[in-house]
Amino acid sequence: MQHTVPEDQVHYLWDEGNEPTLRIESGDEISVETREVSDGQITPESTTEVLGDLDVSRLYPLVGPVYVEGAEPGDTLKVEILSIETRGWGWTAILPGLGLLPDEFPDPYLRIFDLSADTTPLDDVAKIPVEPFFGTMGVCPAGAREQTVMPPGTFGGNMDTRQLVQGSTLYLPVQVEGAHFSCGDAHGAQGDGEVCVTGIEAPMAGTFRLSVEKRTIPAPQWSAPGQLTPRVDDGVFFGTTGVGPDLYVCAQDAVRAMVAHLVETRSLSAEDAYVLASLCVDLKISEIVDAGQYIVSAVLPLAVFA
Amino acid sequence: MQHTVPEDQVHYLWDEGNEPTLRIESGDEISVETREVSDGQITPESTTEVLGDLDVSRLYPLVGPVYVEGAEPGDTLKVEILSIETRGWGWTAILPGLGLLPDEFPDPYLRIFDLSADTTPLDDVAKIPVEPFFGTMGVCPAGAREQTVMPPGTFGGNMDTRQLVQGSTLYLPVQVEGAHFSCGDAHGAQGDGEVCVTGIEAPMAGTFRLSVEKRTIPAPQWSAPGQLTPRVDDGVFFGTTGVGPDLYVCAQDAVRAMVAHLVETRSLSAEDAYVLASLCVDLKISEIVDAGQYIVSAVLPLAVFA
Repeated sequence: MQHTVPEDQVHYLWDEGNEPTLRIESGDEISVETREVSDGQITPESTTEVLGDLDVSRLYPLVGPVYVEGAEPGDTLKVEILSIETRGWGWTAILPGLGLLPDEFPDPYLRIFDLSADTTPLDDVAKIPVEPFFGTMGVCPAGAREQTVMPPGTFGGNMDTRQLVQGSTLYLPVQVEGAHFSCGDAHGAQGDGEVCVTGIEAPMAGTFRLSVEKRTIPAPQWSAPGQLTPRVDDGVFFGTTGVGPDLYVCAQDAVRAMVAHLVETRSLSAEDAYVLASLCVDLKISEIVDAGQYIVSAVLPLAVFA
Repeated sequence: MQHTVPEDQVHYLWDEGNEPTLRIESGDEISVETREVSDGQITPESTTEVLGDLDVSRLYPLVGPVYVEGAEPGDTLKVEILSIETRGWGWTAILPGLGLLPDEFPDPYLRIFDLSADTTPLDDVAKIPVEPFFGTMGVCPAGAREQTVMPPGTFGGNMDTRQLVQGSTLYLPVQVEGAHFSCGDAHGAQGDGEVCVTGIEAPMAGTFRLSVEKRTIPAPQWSAPGQLTPRVDDGVFFGTTGVGPDLYVCAQDAVRAMVAHLVETRSLSAEDAYVLASLCVDLKISEIVDAGQYIVSAVLPLAVFA
């Protein structure tokens, strides 16, 4: 059975009281059409000035919740991501006070990207692979009352996990009766970490199959098909590292070194280097077991410059 | 110019007073033959009992230091990893009190692996890709006096970074005159994170080209060629996640969920699941910017089961 989730009924908060916009049986397919995360406040014609006037209460418009018959707390909701399709454009911003390096990047910055092809250019310097996914897919958290969408949780939500592309399957721990699945906040591209705080934020269409499984998982799990970014995965990688007792600081140090490297070697402004890191650089925990000194690597596929 | 680093002269500690075992010019090549990390205390015939009697002062036998003429503090040592060759076997152990999940795995456990082929079997359950690298490559830290090898630092050292395979290049910040490059602690396989505290610890042969660059980097950087584990990188991946305010706890939760998944679905003991996670599972920071709630994913290439 196929359904369309009403696209004009969105919610901006997780709340157990949100009325389902659709009720389906386990195994049914749904199609969605979602707004970009600013809810239309940013358009293809926007400039950086728009960032000063954002109404933050309108961030994260999610479609749903979708009520799945038979889903009970303790169950697992299987979300098969059947298709994802961009709507031709998206934006990436540096937002003051947010992101991994807020002290180095205190000023707002906005870029608009064309998502109509397989890659999108960052000026004439890099070609960013377009591999879209929904940044937010989740079930309603137990007891949620006007809970903000930005932080994810064991219920999923704002997972910003780039592996969840078309062909992937996401498993979510059901916390309320009917699961109350919602989604939105799609990205045209993003690296592991989303370091500048945005991917390529984009309106998106998608189809999912939702099924209830009578088993319990502690947090989201997923499977993903093959290479994520086949256009660049076979080429040479460049890595910077952060070493120390705090993984968060390690990640900051690694990204700081990557931004410096990109500015030095690639004719990029610091802002564009940070944006490129958010869209193409993957944060890996290289080791987490060596006497309290950890290494986080920031890894860039150099084929984006080819 | 080609040199052989004396293989019988090893050091177990970083120390500025360690006498160089070789002096070379910038741009020279060196060949090394290194012992596995236990310094011969573990052999292909060893059983778990050996772990109770390890002399820890003999862990991390490193060859070198190699003095590179012209290297000064503030320079960068370029280490081109020209070749790496296994010596046919290696071992992986769970060591009490160490690793990412010490509470769940309080008992010692040892497995011997055959490294004579492209993959090495974990019983008849999984085929682990053999992609060897040196777990420890570093320059002597400034001011080092009997400093243990286990924790790495901005000088490199015990980096346990799986990307540093044959064909890669590592850049290290020189901290003492002559750089004093040492290496050892090679691994036949390891995932990002090395979660059980060991890779496949193995004796290894390698060749490097060492060159001095008159520029300064804050911490190790590297480049790596193409796919790291081409035998499994194109297949399906399975991911578990940890979500929360502490990246270390997120990583623990993700690995805990992966171990549980492997035990449930793959006829593996908990110990072998943990070992497989250490050898094949990569820890990724999926997002690090969402209002203080982070996601670490533990990612397993399912092609190891093919």
